[in-house]
Amino acid sequence: MSLDRLSLNQRTTAQWSLREAIDGCLDAGLPAIGVWREPVAEVGLDTAAAWLRDSGLRVSSVCRGGFFTGADPAARREAHDENLRALDETAALGAPVLVLVPGGLPDGDRDLAGARSRAAEAVAALAVEAGARGVRLGIEPMHPIYAADRGVVSTLAQALDLAEAHPVDEVGVVVDTFHLWWEPGIAYQIARAGPRIASYQVSDWITPFPPDALLARGMVGDGHIDFATFTAAVAAAGYRGDVEVEIFNAELWGRAGKEVVETLARRYLDLVEPFLAPL
Amino acid sequence: MSLDRLSLNQRTTAQWSLREAIDGCLDAGLPAIGVWREPVAEVGLDTAAAWLRDSGLRVSSVCRGGFFTGADPAARREAHDENLRALDETAALGAPVLVLVPGGLPDGDRDLAGARSRAAEAVAALAVEAGARGVRLGIEPMHPIYAADRGVVSTLAQALDLAEAHPVDEVGVVVDTFHLWWEPGIAYQIARAGPRIASYQVSDWITPFPPDALLARGMVGDGHIDFATFTAAVAAAGYRGDVEVEIFNAELWGRAGKEVVETLARRYLDLVEPFLAPL
Repeated sequence: MSLDRLSLNQRTTAQWSLREAIDGCLDAGLPAIGVWREPVAEVGLDTAAAWLRDSGLRVSSVCRGGFFTGADPAARREAHDENLRALDETAALGAPVLVLVPGGLPDGDRDLAGARSRAAEAVAALAVEAGARGVRLGIEPMHPIYAADRGVVSTLAQALDLAEAHPVDEVGVVVDTFHLWWEPGIAYQIARAGPRIASYQVSDWITPFPPDALLARGMVGDGHIDFATFTAAVAAAGYRGDVEVEIFNAELWGRAGKEVVETLARRYLDLVEPFLAPL
Repeated sequence: MSLDRLSLNQRTTAQWSLREAIDGCLDAGLPAIGVWREPVAEVGLDTAAAWLRDSGLRVSSVCRGGFFTGADPAARREAHDENLRALDETAALGAPVLVLVPGGLPDGDRDLAGARSRAAEAVAALAVEAGARGVRLGIEPMHPIYAADRGVVSTLAQALDLAEAHPVDEVGVVVDTFHLWWEPGIAYQIARAGPRIASYQVSDWITPFPPDALLARGMVGDGHIDFATFTAAVAAAGYRGDVEVEIFNAELWGRAGKEVVETLARRYLDLVEPFLAPL
């Protein structure tokens, strides 16, 4: 039993600043943190990088790039440039992966196939740029509830179809239990993913589905997901990286950050850690 | 331009009794209705069947059977018997298909694969019973948002894997735009379905996703779904049956039923009917 692969994704404790989150991880004995660009920008990239380096924490991922499904050429160019900046930041922060949230349909646009094609093209344009910076793109397939307005890549199968067009060290996938637990054939897709798994994120699917779809995730163990089976599949696929707890939940944000981290560490030790292969 | 394949699913006008819905269809020139078991039970099966026969309306489907994912043997036997009654009613009402909503995970159960296996077994036990009554089971793949609490069959691909184990006249699938619009490879799956398509239902995916996930469907044309492309695929697969408008939406239930039917008929003529192959 050990926390040595547990990472706190910053959005789980949105009530904390970056400084507080770093200190919170250290206090709780967590070895890693997944950072978001916005709180990094608040203190400045150099300061954030220095704090993280001095903390000794691993930066398990940077959230997030993507949002590159715009139909307008100017919007696509802008998105590409923004993703280059995100890749620079990912490298500067010493993180192995930039999580990509593809984006949804442009306003008034109903061409889902077109948006999916543009996502593939955008990944292709960024892959070499990631490799040149020594970091990896992590395509995040998102639950189909977000297909219209946030992420047009809806299954791990689809994310792998995209990723496999590129070298494995340039383009991987993010495997998130909340997004993927329902996918028919998920065990096969996780095995297929193998070394493409760039990040493993955990949170739970709770019912009744909360009123705000963007804040609908539950604490690990509070919902319907079988973390033992899912985690064992990820481990069997060869994943040996950090496990990020990423929970968007307004109720958790209203609690003391320290209490949230204590709870998630306990749940991790009970429900996830026993099913991770030894390093 | 014609309404001759448009069917009003009763849940779209839940403010109406069965009698009102029948009269509403006749007033608006709709040739068909999709009925629910509860409003049928309110007036009694014989009365409902007589009203429908006398009305000259086609009964495009009966909603609904299913809910057969219980883990407990007694619960499974009870579900089987309830589905037999639903099949009897479907035959008595002269409908070609009983729509099956598979059901979710039993309380406290996280074994999604197990629930899916039980759904397959339940369909197998009902298929011959349906055939013996001259009606068809229509497996309804449901949006993954409902996988935990309502429908463990989440994609058309998965529904077809289930259905194809049985004769085509015993087990078909229900193709509903709301549930399936996001599915990667949906055009291929619709073509694969071919004569398995037992019902085509339309409603829209709207954002932001409404607070109550069970009442989240939008009027055709109000959301993100490309009905032209989807409908053309269903037509190309050979479907020549009725098109049911099925919208669960509390705001529509607060309006006059007549107004709702007028709106949906107009939207159907604009967005769906032009893409149906001629009979």
